[in-house]
Amino acid sequence: MRWSRFYAPTLRQDPADAETAGHRLLVRAGFIRRLAAGHYSLLPPAARVRSKIIEVIRQEMDRIGAQEVLLPALQPAELWRRNGRWDASGEETFRLTDRKGAEAALGTTHEEVVASLATELGSYRRLPQLWYQFQTAFRDEARPRSGLLGLREFTLKDAYSLDADEAALEGSFQAHREAYRRIFQRLGLPVIEAQGPGGSLEFLCPSEAGDDAVVRCPACGYAADAETAASRLAPVTDGPGPEKPERFDTPHAKTIEELTARHGVPADRQIKTLVYRVDGRLTLVLLRGDHALAERKLADATGAAAVRPADPEEIFQTLGAHPGSLGAVTATLPPGSDLPILADEALRGRRDMTTGANTDGVHVRGVDIARDIAVTAWADLRRARAGEPCPSCGQALETTPAIEVAHLRKPGRRCTEALGARVLGPDGTEITPLMGRYSIGVERAIAAIAETGHDDSGLRWPAGIAPFDVAVTLLDPRDDQVTAAAEQIYTALAAAGVETILDDRDERPGAKFADTELIGIPYRVTVGKRGLKSGTVEIKTRATGRTDTVPIPEAAARVTALLKS
Amino acid sequence: MRWSRFYAPTLRQDPADAETAGHRLLVRAGFIRRLAAGHYSLLPPAARVRSKIIEVIRQEMDRIGAQEVLLPALQPAELWRRNGRWDASGEETFRLTDRKGAEAALGTTHEEVVASLATELGSYRRLPQLWYQFQTAFRDEARPRSGLLGLREFTLKDAYSLDADEAALEGSFQAHREAYRRIFQRLGLPVIEAQGPGGSLEFLCPSEAGDDAVVRCPACGYAADAETAASRLAPVTDGPGPEKPERFDTPHAKTIEELTARHGVPADRQIKTLVYRVDGRLTLVLLRGDHALAERKLADATGAAAVRPADPEEIFQTLGAHPGSLGAVTATLPPGSDLPILADEALRGRRDMTTGANTDGVHVRGVDIARDIAVTAWADLRRARAGEPCPSCGQALETTPAIEVAHLRKPGRRCTEALGARVLGPDGTEITPLMGRYSIGVERAIAAIAETGHDDSGLRWPAGIAPFDVAVTLLDPRDDQVTAAAEQIYTALAAAGVETILDDRDERPGAKFADTELIGIPYRVTVGKRGLKSGTVEIKTRATGRTDTVPIPEAAARVTALLKS
Repeated sequence: MRWSRFYAPTLRQDPADAETAGHRLLVRAGFIRRLAAGHYSLLPPAARVRSKIIEVIRQEMDRIGAQEVLLPALQPAELWRRNGRWDASGEETFRLTDRKGAEAALGTTHEEVVASLATELGSYRRLPQLWYQFQTAFRDEARPRSGLLGLREFTLKDAYSLDADEAALEGSFQAHREAYRRIFQRLGLPVIEAQGPGGSLEFLCPSEAGDDAVVRCPACGYAADAETAASRLAPVTDGPGPEKPERFDTPHAKTIEELTARHGVPADRQIKTLVYRVDGRLTLVLLRGDHALAERKLADATGAAAVRPADPEEIFQTLGAHPGSLGAVTATLPPGSDLPILADEALRGRRDMTTGANTDGVHVRGVDIARDIAVTAWADLRRARAGEPCPSCGQALETTPAIEVAHLRKPGRRCTEALGARVLGPDGTEITPLMGRYSIGVERAIAAIAETGHDDSGLRWPAGIAPFDVAVTLLDPRDDQVTAAAEQIYTALAAAGVETILDDRDERPGAKFADTELIGIPYRVTVGKRGLKSGTVEIKTRATGRTDTVPIPEAAARVTALLKS
Repeated sequence: MRWSRFYAPTLRQDPADAETAGHRLLVRAGFIRRLAAGHYSLLPPAARVRSKIIEVIRQEMDRIGAQEVLLPALQPAELWRRNGRWDASGEETFRLTDRKGAEAALGTTHEEVVASLATELGSYRRLPQLWYQFQTAFRDEARPRSGLLGLREFTLKDAYSLDADEAALEGSFQAHREAYRRIFQRLGLPVIEAQGPGGSLEFLCPSEAGDDAVVRCPACGYAADAETAASRLAPVTDGPGPEKPERFDTPHAKTIEELTARHGVPADRQIKTLVYRVDGRLTLVLLRGDHALAERKLADATGAAAVRPADPEEIFQTLGAHPGSLGAVTATLPPGSDLPILADEALRGRRDMTTGANTDGVHVRGVDIARDIAVTAWADLRRARAGEPCPSCGQALETTPAIEVAHLRKPGRRCTEALGARVLGPDGTEITPLMGRYSIGVERAIAAIAETGHDDSGLRWPAGIAPFDVAVTLLDPRDDQVTAAAEQIYTALAAAGVETILDDRDERPGAKFADTELIGIPYRVTVGKRGLKSGTVEIKTRATGRTDTVPIPEAAARVTALLKS
C-alpha cells in the first residue's frame, strides 16, 4: 500500500482525554477515535492490527481442533430465563424490547446458545465439541474508561467446549490454555496465568494501565487475580476480655480509623460489618477492621449470581443504625432477626473485639465472636494484600496492576442441565455434557500491546501484528531515480509476501520518520539521494534503533531475513 | 480437516419451518440453526462459507483502494439527532437505554459515524476516502422470514466513500459497482443491476425465494427495483362528462372492485384516494383505481424520511369518512382543508372520473381533475406492472422475484452537512464532501447462493466458496491400505493449498456420498478397495456429475487442475 492512500491521521499533540500512555499513542498514531464513552472507531491502522490478531487466534484455535461458528449477538430473554440469567445478570447487560414487545439482551457470553445447540448432539460419540467465534460483544460498564480498555462494545473471541466427563473437560481446558500461551507469545504479550474466581484461569498482562491486579509470589510462582488471591496471616493473640460485651458511646467515630484515633482501638481488633444483598437476600458480612471484602469471594462462597452492597436506607430500616455503627452481636440485633451472618476466616476464635452496637454513635467492646455472634457460615472473604505471606510458601506477596486479556472458565453442567442438553453415554444412559468457556478480548489485546510495547517515539508492534511490517520511506518523491529504487524494493518485498507500505507522501523526511515510529512499523527502509550515490539504502530496526546500510539489490532480502529472525 | 472432527449435523428429514428450497437445504446440510425468529446460529460449514465470502469481498474492496475500518455497532441517539434520523427512523431500528438513561440505537448504517470522522479530514487533499467494514448489523423486521433472508441481525459489509465533488463521487460509485460485479462473479451469483430508489443501484439475484422483485425489459435491458420501476401507459380517452361532479349513493361499494361490479365504473375511470403521513403530515395521495402506490416513490417525491399509511381513525376525524368513500374533490373536502394532495402522473388531464365523496356510502362521478381537484403536486407514484410498456423502448416489461444482495447509494452531502464535515478546497474555501454508501449482506449472499445453486441432492457451492473444495472419501476406514492411499491424497492436496476434508467416518458409503452432495462440496475423490486393486481412485465433479478414474499418484494434481479450470 502507498501511504498517500493510507488513512492514519497522526496528531502532533497528545489528546486531552487519554488516561494512559497506550491510549494516548493509539489516538496520536491515528488508530482510534472516540464516538462515545466506551465506543471507539478503529481506523485503518487499528483495523489491520485487529485482523492480524484475529488471524493468529484463529490459527491457534484451529490447531487444537476447534471449529469456527457464529452465534447470535442478540439473545431472547426466554432463553436466558431457562438458565435464571435474565434475572441474575445485572446492569452490565444491555437489554432491549423489540417492536412486538419481546425482550432480548446483548450479551458477552453465549453459554445458553451453545447449550441449546448441544441438545441436538445425540451421542457421546459427537463429543468433544470445541466451538469458537468472533462476535461483537456488549457490556454496559458502570464507568467506561477511556480508550480500548473500558469498551462497552468489543470484538470477543469466545469459545466453548462440550465434554462427556470431568477429565475430558480438563483436557479441553488445558488445550485452550496451551493455545492461549501460543497466542500471547505470538502477540508479544508478557502474560501471567493467575487463578480466577470459581476455579477459572486468567491471563493477565502486567501494566501500570491495568484496571485489574494480580497478586503474585516471587518465590514459588503463586499467582491469582486480586479478587481471588488468598494469603496467610500472622496470628493475633487476644486477651480474654470482659465476661460480656460492654456498650460505649462513640459519637464522632463513624469509621475504623476514627475509632482507632479517638478510642484507641487498633483496626485489627475491630470487626467491620458490611450489609450486602446476596441474590436479593440481606446478609451481614464480617471482616477484620483492617481487611477489605473481595466481592468475588462472597459470590463464590454463597454460590450467588449477584451480590451488591445494600442501600444505607434499607440498612437503617433493618438494623436501626447507619453504616459506621453496625454490628452482628446477637444482643444488639433487632429481636427475631434472622439475617444470615457470613464471617471471614480471619475472625475465627477472636476475642475482646470491638464492633458497632446498631445504635448510631454507640459501639460494643469485649466481643468474643464464638460467644457473642451467631455466625451462619465462615469463609475466606477478604482481599489479600501485598506484603502478606504467600498461601503456598509464606514469602511476602506482591501486587501488580494488570490487564486481563483472557479468561478460561468451567461452567460445567450448570447451563447444559438447565437447557436439557443431554447425550446418550457409552452404556446407553443419558449424560449431561460439561461446558468450558474461553474468551479473549481482541481490542483488549490491542490495548495491552500498546500499553506494554511503546517508547518515547511511539508504538512498537511485533512483526506480523503491526499494521505493516516494513515501511519503504521515499525521501525524494520528486526524484525519478530515488522513486524507481524505492518502487523496486517495495515491489520485491510485496512479491516476497511482506506487508509493506511505501511512504510516497510529499512530506519532510523528519515527518515521515516520526509517523513511521509513532505508528510502530518494525522496519524502515530509507531510500534517498545520498544513499543512491553509493547504491545503498538504510534499514532501521524499530525495536533496537539499529541502522544497517545495505546495497539496493540486497535490501528486500535483508529485510525479509530480519523479519524471519 | 477430518470429517470425524467436523461438526455438520446433517438431517435426513426436511425441517418443518423452512419456506424455501435454499433454507431447507441449509438446515438439512447442518449449516444453520434457528435460535429465534430472525436469529440464526451459523454452524461450522456456514461459518466457513461466510469467511470465504468475506475474504472475496475484502480482496475486491482492497483492490479499489478501500481501507478496512471497524465502526461502533451501538450508536448514541445524540449523533443521530444531529442528522434528524433518531426521529425519522422507524420501528426497524432497535433502540435501547443504558444504565445511565442514555438512548442508543443498533443501526444498519454508519453514515453519521463516517461523517463525524470526516470532520477531521481537514483538506481536499485527503479525498477521496473509501472505508469499509464487516460489522454485525441489526434490523427489527416486522415479519422476519425464516432462514437467512429475513434476519434481524446479520454481517453487513458497509462501505462509505467521501469525495470532493459530484464527478469524484460518481468515480467512487462506479469503482464500487465494478468491485461488486467481480465479487458476485466470484461468488457464482447471477445478478441484475437495477435502478433503486433515489438514484441508487441494487444488485438483485433472480430467485423464486426472493422477497424483492425486479422489473425488467427483455428488449433493451432496462431494469429497476419493483418499487422504483417506471412504465409507459396506454392513453385513455375520456368524454367531457357533466358540467360539475354528481353525487350518487354507493351503500355497498367500499372497494374499487365493488364500485366496478355494482355501479359499472371501470377501475381505470376511478380515482383511488389514499391518506398517508408524510414525515408526520397528513397527505392525500391519488392514483388511478387500477394502480398501486409505490411507497418508495412517495418518499422520493416528497423527500420525506418516513411515510406510512394514516390510521382509519385519524382519517375519519379529518375527512369525515372511512377508506372506501374518500376523495379529493374540493367541494367534498371539509371547509378550510389544507391537506396537501399528491397525484400520480397517470391521472393528469383525466375527466369524467369517479371517486369517493368523503361521506360513507357516497361517491361522486363526472370529476374533471383539473377542474375539480386542487392538486398540490404531480409525481410518478405508481408501481409498474409486468406487461406494461418499458419506459425506454416500449416493449412489455417482465417482473421477476429476486433477492437483493447489494445496494449502492449516494447520500451526497445530506449527512456530512448535518454533521459539519467540511474540508478546505483547492482555492482555500470550505467544501462539504459528498458521501457514497455501498452495502452487501453477507448472510443474504449465502442464502442467495443456496437458493440459486442447488439440485435434488443438495447444495452446490462454487469452488473457493464451498466449506471445502474437495472431499476425500475413505470407503473402508478399517483397511490400512485404503486408509494410507486416502491419507496420501489428502496430504498432497493440503500441501497444494486445497481446502480438503477427509471423510474418515465409520459410515456406509451411501451416507458419506449423500452428506458430501448435501453439503455441496465441489469435488469428491473416492478411495476404496476396488479401485485400489487397479491403483486408481474416482474423482466426481459435483456440478456435472462427471466421474473420472485416475491413478492414485495423479489424483491430487488432477483435482487441483480441475479446481483451477
